[in-house]
Amino acid sequence: MSHAAGPQPPRQLHLNINILHSGFVPSAWRVAEADPHAFIDVAHYVRVAQIAEAAKFDAVFLADNASIADQIGFRPITALEPTVLLASIAAATSHIGVIGTASTSYNEPYNIARRFATLDHVSAGRAGWNVVTTADLGSARNFGREAVPDHTERYARAAEFTEVVKALWDSWEDDAFIGDKINGHFVDADKIHPIAHHGKYFDVQGPLNLPRSPQGHPVLVQAGASPDGRDLAARHAEAVFSASQSFDESLAYGRELKARAAAYGRNAVKVLAGLTTIIGATESEALRRRDELVDLIPWSYSLTRLAGTLGIPADRLKLDEKLPDNLTLPGGGNGNHTFFHATIAQARRHGFTVRELIRSLAGGGGHRVIVGTPEQIADDIEHWFKAGAADGFNLMPDVLPGGLQDFADGVVPLLQQRGIFRTEYEGRTLREHLGLARPDNARVWQKSA
Amino acid sequence: MSHAAGPQPPRQLHLNINILHSGFVPSAWRVAEADPHAFIDVAHYVRVAQIAEAAKFDAVFLADNASIADQIGFRPITALEPTVLLASIAAATSHIGVIGTASTSYNEPYNIARRFATLDHVSAGRAGWNVVTTADLGSARNFGREAVPDHTERYARAAEFTEVVKALWDSWEDDAFIGDKINGHFVDADKIHPIAHHGKYFDVQGPLNLPRSPQGHPVLVQAGASPDGRDLAARHAEAVFSASQSFDESLAYGRELKARAAAYGRNAVKVLAGLTTIIGATESEALRRRDELVDLIPWSYSLTRLAGTLGIPADRLKLDEKLPDNLTLPGGGNGNHTFFHATIAQARRHGFTVRELIRSLAGGGGHRVIVGTPEQIADDIEHWFKAGAADGFNLMPDVLPGGLQDFADGVVPLLQQRGIFRTEYEGRTLREHLGLARPDNARVWQKSA
Repeated sequence: MSHAAGPQPPRQLHLNINILHSGFVPSAWRVAEADPHAFIDVAHYVRVAQIAEAAKFDAVFLADNASIADQIGFRPITALEPTVLLASIAAATSHIGVIGTASTSYNEPYNIARRFATLDHVSAGRAGWNVVTTADLGSARNFGREAVPDHTERYARAAEFTEVVKALWDSWEDDAFIGDKINGHFVDADKIHPIAHHGKYFDVQGPLNLPRSPQGHPVLVQAGASPDGRDLAARHAEAVFSASQSFDESLAYGRELKARAAAYGRNAVKVLAGLTTIIGATESEALRRRDELVDLIPWSYSLTRLAGTLGIPADRLKLDEKLPDNLTLPGGGNGNHTFFHATIAQARRHGFTVRELIRSLAGGGGHRVIVGTPEQIADDIEHWFKAGAADGFNLMPDVLPGGLQDFADGVVPLLQQRGIFRTEYEGRTLREHLGLARPDNARVWQKSA
Repeated sequence: MSHAAGPQPPRQLHLNINILHSGFVPSAWRVAEADPHAFIDVAHYVRVAQIAEAAKFDAVFLADNASIADQIGFRPITALEPTVLLASIAAATSHIGVIGTASTSYNEPYNIARRFATLDHVSAGRAGWNVVTTADLGSARNFGREAVPDHTERYARAAEFTEVVKALWDSWEDDAFIGDKINGHFVDADKIHPIAHHGKYFDVQGPLNLPRSPQGHPVLVQAGASPDGRDLAARHAEAVFSASQSFDESLAYGRELKARAAAYGRNAVKVLAGLTTIIGATESEALRRRDELVDLIPWSYSLTRLAGTLGIPADRLKLDEKLPDNLTLPGGGNGNHTFFHATIAQARRHGFTVRELIRSLAGGGGHRVIVGTPEQIADDIEHWFKAGAADGFNLMPDVLPGGLQDFADGVVPLLQQRGIFRTEYEGRTLREHLGLARPDNARVWQKSA
């Protein structure tokens, strides 16, 4: 069955809310309005999602990690498992998409195919899977490994994993389900196919025990910055989260990625740039808010975190000096490329000392931070969007839900007035929000023997 | 911290609703009221759960299988993944427990510990995990194996898996979370411990990235009938689902299991017997309902299914003859012990032909079926409960939601009048419904180095 896309609406900005527990700034949980329990409180996540839905955001996004942070003492951690939490969020919302992260290194493709397809069914077509390979040692040691698998192996496994998941999602033809009560034909078994995958990492017979999901399959999301990561994104991702600190980097990243995707015959990948906002009625009020938040973070915490991103001992960083020269990718190229490069570029561009760098990142881990009035933020977003440096943003407010509420009240109306963001949902599925067609079943099945 | 149980209420019956898509009888999806899409429709599951909650049931129970049934053509299959679906159900209910099945053979303990702890958090203490080892070839072939692991290996892995999960659930001391905003102490890292498990099947460093959950940990449920299965249940299970066809078998099973548990120092395991109900205003109406349902099932389907349970080719079964003699456990002892024994016992006890056996099972797979009026069903339940043949029942109505609604309207009020079933929830957690104390943290942690 063919699912032709309808007439294209004018290009629209996309906005996701990244619900990182109490907010992106590490001290977010310490502000007066914050409940320290929020990181494990489903009501907190639902409340944030409902604010985002009222503001007509495309999706909720949940990061993930299957280990405890090394610096467990100071700040909240990624705790609740995304697919279960997103099902709770989906039940309390009606339109907003629900995108969850899951690792290809520490799961099995059948389980992931099934769980995200289930999320797509229970949310009536609002699910997305953010494919990650997981680079931290803590996770490796929770899954029987004494070291992080090397970068090449992780991405080779991720590529095969993603292909198996997509094949499983397509293992039922679209018209395999019959439901003929009179004649007792529940499904047409000839239209449900084993995938018989036998690869380097996986042997999976299939079929999946679920019909194709409302969106055809969940939206595939990726965030790779390394060459292997970009290749995976180009081959499979329908939306990509980027971590570019500057307009030029983001423009170049998006162009390069879309060219790679086009080389695979794909022309519908959306680039969503990570963006932390710190909003004030005036710029100086916003800067004061940022400084108050940063002052609530112990410098020892920020230094250790920055050193982790850079792959060096914390004592090599001096608060009032610049970053050391000759930094190399952590783990012999096995670390997190995205934040390593973005952080160094940010420091070099502005000539920052370590203290200034940490302040400019709002204590954060590498995503871009804008500090300013709603007008300033809307201007920045409009500029990036119209010039093609991003198709949208993965918003990571300083504090949740307050920072999102400020964005919804102050920035969203400006974007709507400027005609670049929806005032009502036009569709019901995440694909419809993102302007992505429902994919045809990619497999041409032989008649089963 | 000690959690002493309060004064014990009078012994109460426990009732779970097993939501097997359209109902337990394979033709349930064909009746006039049924929607064939129900098996993948979250609204169907929510509706059934809400009927059960209005009737004050203890929990919703979801079976699971990570493969497609061999006989995919005729009837609905287990499709939606339980933890995601149960999160949806929990969001639409407030009291009823949510118990999901997950296999120890095709998952990793860190992922399962996390997902069920998350479900306990998002449901505010209503989660349970039904531990299964998965005996079908289809599942094995979806996870890189060409054969089902043998029974002994499956249960050895299950035992180690369960111990790792419990250790992870206890890896945070109860007072590890601080949330001191003034002084910036989020948690006490000295009270969060690696488990450093190194066993035959798993190496898991820990800790879990979640505090202990509202119930201390989710309720552990098991359904083993083999000696290995009973040993696993005796060591860990807080509730057990049994499949006894007769009062005497159930009484003996429960006594033996509780004696085994006592030998491990455990005295709080609830035995919940599987029970399919087919209800009519009169007994003859109920029998007519059963026969109509059975007549909607192709005999070829029922014969193949029964042959599968018995581990023989379908052509060895003759509808108007008795079961063959000298049946042996399928797969050289590697099959499903529970239903193999229950089915044969049922046939021998009544001297049934194959046709009579299938009819008495309502086309089912081995669980007990009562056909009768609400009064007859209440009498049977009261008899089993008061005589100690069961602490409660895992109800599998013929058709859902209709069969459950009939039970809620007709049988529940009788049980309440007889003083053996609650008229209101007294607690909020699944443990409180089941009369199980919140477990203390089982590990005596050393101060971290």
